[in-house]
Amino acid sequence: MSFADDTAVTPRGDGTFTTAIRPGWDIAGNANGGYLLALAARALAHYTGRPDPVTITAHYLSPGKPGDAFVRCETVKQGKRFSTATARLERDGVPVLQVLGAFSELTAGGTPERIDGAPPELPPLEDCIAPQAEAGFDPPFMHRVELRLHPEDAGFRTGKPSGVAQMRGWFRLAGGEPADTIALLMGTDAFPPTIFNARLPVGWTPTVELTAHVRARPAPGWLRARFTTRFVTGGFLEEDGELWDATGRLVAQSRQLALLPRPEPPA
Amino acid sequence: MSFADDTAVTPRGDGTFTTAIRPGWDIAGNANGGYLLALAARALAHYTGRPDPVTITAHYLSPGKPGDAFVRCETVKQGKRFSTATARLERDGVPVLQVLGAFSELTAGGTPERIDGAPPELPPLEDCIAPQAEAGFDPPFMHRVELRLHPEDAGFRTGKPSGVAQMRGWFRLAGGEPADTIALLMGTDAFPPTIFNARLPVGWTPTVELTAHVRARPAPGWLRARFTTRFVTGGFLEEDGELWDATGRLVAQSRQLALLPRPEPPA
Repeated sequence: MSFADDTAVTPRGDGTFTTAIRPGWDIAGNANGGYLLALAARALAHYTGRPDPVTITAHYLSPGKPGDAFVRCETVKQGKRFSTATARLERDGVPVLQVLGAFSELTAGGTPERIDGAPPELPPLEDCIAPQAEAGFDPPFMHRVELRLHPEDAGFRTGKPSGVAQMRGWFRLAGGEPADTIALLMGTDAFPPTIFNARLPVGWTPTVELTAHVRARPAPGWLRARFTTRFVTGGFLEEDGELWDATGRLVAQSRQLALLPRPEPPA
Repeated sequence: MSFADDTAVTPRGDGTFTTAIRPGWDIAGNANGGYLLALAARALAHYTGRPDPVTITAHYLSPGKPGDAFVRCETVKQGKRFSTATARLERDGVPVLQVLGAFSELTAGGTPERIDGAPPELPPLEDCIAPQAEAGFDPPFMHRVELRLHPEDAGFRTGKPSGVAQMRGWFRLAGGEPADTIALLMGTDAFPPTIFNARLPVGWTPTVELTAHVRARPAPGWLRARFTTRFVTGGFLEEDGELWDATGRLVAQSRQLALLPRPEPPA
């Protein structure tokens, strides 16, 4: 019932892995996109022998319902610093996810640093809001992660969206299980969509593609997250994410392209 | 000598294409990364039968010196709205670029729109600065594109970087050749690095990965571009880009992860 257990993969020695999309990571029957990415990334980490996804891109091809799954990895380039490889996650022979990533071993850098940004300012945990609390929305996924939303960003739950396409909050794995860099990938897709706060007539926005950059291994403890959307145009929207660890360090950046469903044609 | 000619590819009927990394698109001997991406994207557009790269990711594997080249495309998923496919660009059997993208036909959307952003405010063209002018830096690439930098962002040329990791300016193909959505990909990597303005002891920052989202086909005319870097940490930096067309519409967003070269060890 841990993230580590539920992303475990079994190598078959030929670049393929057996695994399963475990039950309990779903929202309305389909596994969370970040969990699916983590599953493929776990296989890639084994396959490349390098633990940290420095930059990884996933294209979402079909919903991931729980069940036995299969990952096929292929090397693109084995370099001195990066192993670049692809992975394809399938369930029942149906492709769910296509992934391209560069893996490495992240070390604390002694290089020049420059930061124009800061973790989101959040009230203390106890003053933030669990999204499922009292909202009649309690999907299994919300028992695998612990989210505490900034109160200003939680109004969508009660029909009072803030009007700002933003979602900020605290994040950790259920029970405080330590997060590795692969858990960060899940974190980049664990929050409710920014669009829920945007006062647009939009509900479900399926992810077309998600790219995450992992900058550092996270320190133990709660992470702080901020997601924003600036451009809802042409039938698409981006969602930009930042994850900051308990020491105040940026550990991951993400951007996903999501689809704005076309309005239903008149019946 | 046009962008269209210099990104032309010849299909061999089996998902592979012969082409060439044409001379003249290089900076110090290596082709511009956006040009290389455009070359692979041109093959993918042919291969999928869909002209517009909605979201495309490239991993840069080795420098692209001019010469005969080869692109191998493979289908990931042929969907109703998107064709997802991979491409590998090779020169002399050496992989240069690995690409994963979703292609479609972009149409003007009647969907809800929301924009929290605007094109960069730029002085008129004649008051902006061609980067190669009077700077002793005149690589072949600068004759294939026309850039006009915001004067505030051009100080790096004369040893007076602004201190802001930003680069803004006008962009078009040489001679005003119309830009298609594949030319936009090149535009996302056509400007001098933001880091040149950051007052950091950093020169060359090779691209590890670049992802671009194309939102719309550009109207004719000059494009406006803005590139910014917020986080130089852990030996990496991101560069976020926006391209806006002459009608003031966002046509592309991009983010690349670049490598901060490790300091040379003492001799």
